[in-house]
Amino acid sequence: MDELEFVAALKKKFPFSHGLGIGDDASVVRSGKRFQLVSSDMLIEDVHFRLSDVSQQQLAQKALAANISDIAAMGGRAQYFYLNLGFPGRLSAADLRLFFTGLKRGCRKWNVELAGGDYSRSEKMFIAIAIVGQSQKPILRRGARPGDWIAVTGPVGESALGLQMLLQGETTSPFIRKHKQVIPQCQKGLVLAGFVNAMIDISDGLLLDLSRMLKASGTGAEIDYEKIPVSPTFKKVCRQYHLSEKDLVLAGGEDYQLLFAVSPRKEILLQKTKIAYRIIGRMTAQQSLRVRENGRPIRIPRLGFDHFHENKAERT
Amino acid sequence: MDELEFVAALKKKFPFSHGLGIGDDASVVRSGKRFQLVSSDMLIEDVHFRLSDVSQQQLAQKALAANISDIAAMGGRAQYFYLNLGFPGRLSAADLRLFFTGLKRGCRKWNVELAGGDYSRSEKMFIAIAIVGQSQKPILRRGARPGDWIAVTGPVGESALGLQMLLQGETTSPFIRKHKQVIPQCQKGLVLAGFVNAMIDISDGLLLDLSRMLKASGTGAEIDYEKIPVSPTFKKVCRQYHLSEKDLVLAGGEDYQLLFAVSPRKEILLQKTKIAYRIIGRMTAQQSLRVRENGRPIRIPRLGFDHFHENKAERT
Repeated sequence: MDELEFVAALKKKFPFSHGLGIGDDASVVRSGKRFQLVSSDMLIEDVHFRLSDVSQQQLAQKALAANISDIAAMGGRAQYFYLNLGFPGRLSAADLRLFFTGLKRGCRKWNVELAGGDYSRSEKMFIAIAIVGQSQKPILRRGARPGDWIAVTGPVGESALGLQMLLQGETTSPFIRKHKQVIPQCQKGLVLAGFVNAMIDISDGLLLDLSRMLKASGTGAEIDYEKIPVSPTFKKVCRQYHLSEKDLVLAGGEDYQLLFAVSPRKEILLQKTKIAYRIIGRMTAQQSLRVRENGRPIRIPRLGFDHFHENKAERT
Repeated sequence: MDELEFVAALKKKFPFSHGLGIGDDASVVRSGKRFQLVSSDMLIEDVHFRLSDVSQQQLAQKALAANISDIAAMGGRAQYFYLNLGFPGRLSAADLRLFFTGLKRGCRKWNVELAGGDYSRSEKMFIAIAIVGQSQKPILRRGARPGDWIAVTGPVGESALGLQMLLQGETTSPFIRKHKQVIPQCQKGLVLAGFVNAMIDISDGLLLDLSRMLKASGTGAEIDYEKIPVSPTFKKVCRQYHLSEKDLVLAGGEDYQLLFAVSPRKEILLQKTKIAYRIIGRMTAQQSLRVRENGRPIRIPRLGFDHFHENKAERT
């Protein structure tokens, strides 16, 4: 059973009568004239991070940013969150203070508030957050239509490259910074909400997150690899470190860029907003996912990070 | 720094502008004519449970029940929840299925729905839940007044006794069942909401949870030990296992009974509802916590389970 099947099984087993439950970046429940969005996400020591690689301040902000990104991916505005923190006894009271200093900084940066939670000792550190946001018109994964453009808000693969550099013992690089310091696309999400048919954030890899959108929308996609935003420096560093550029771009996770589908007509209007994005392909009626490079089909390495087929070495 | 100080520090560092944030069983945010309640709580392997002691089905229900209890303690009705599940690779797919079977059973039993969440591999299993509920008139911890009766909805210490029996190698006993199968006091919470001034659920021990209410309300309390509901069987088993009855009753956690403060005038009306509860003491203006037995003061052993002064042997 892979993750998509697992989620589908859960969705069937747990019907949700209050709105939209399992299966998108956040749940959607009507609240007066608006919709309340809630998303829940976590970071676990030695699964998602190593304590030797990131500071407590960075960790707190990364966990928060990943959750905020889920709300941004619904075209919503994050408001407040609940923190379940498992904290190892081997860490100090100063570490704990640094964690909350980072969290406070994140709150200021992204205009969200801590509303409650729970704290406990734990052998491995973990940070589980449930975040609440709102939207007047939530954008789901399932609204894409054949003929829609597929676009991303920025470069992908850079966080994954940073992670690989960390694993190879490197400590400073703009890519490592990208890996440690997640920037959720809050403003872009809000603007895009007025134009797009479907949206998702790229947390587990471009192709895996795209395939989730395809599955939800009942569409397929054709991606033109050369249109994906990849900098010359990125290509150079990949070569230097003997890493597969395509694998990082197509399957590397944690970029937290937004991936969206927009009709050609609306895309013309979207251009006027001046927000940065790049069209990388098109939605198709045929339910398959194809990637071409300069018109020639390329082999898809792996979709991305799947918690059901996890390769620990890839991620820790 | 103990837990009360930690929470007070957090509350100061993280002001909440949407309603009531940190510091009660759940946060409270107005939503139309009602209030939305959200609470967040977790269970961690080898901190809160051992996998050898409880089944996956029991675990799922216990985690859910503990969260539902927080909503009940606010006088609210639980509606839906978000699950962050860390699941060890050493467990099987069958274990995972059993967990969700138990969760489903809990959903039916307590009329709540799964709305979303996150899943990841994890070395130690953990279950972090954020639960959403609603109420027309939330009952806080801070409403108690000097002269109020202090009452509990049922026996305390039984779950803690069950845990001690488990630790001593026992496997079957009504007390072990109480430890494994948490019953949140949903209906009582809803009824009590119409009468009481302050309420909290007893998750970490009678005196510790009472002291949280006292702190929030700015009151003190006098408890008459002999009025606390304790069965003859309980006393007998404590003696058999050489356990301190008073310690279990006053400081044992996880009973999930409701503890409340009610004015003598309202208590007369409460009697007519026929719900079961027992008056165990009285709120005082003097801000201290005293326990008497047949009129004579007794020494308070420890308040209860504090995650900041945790003795692992006590809990695992």
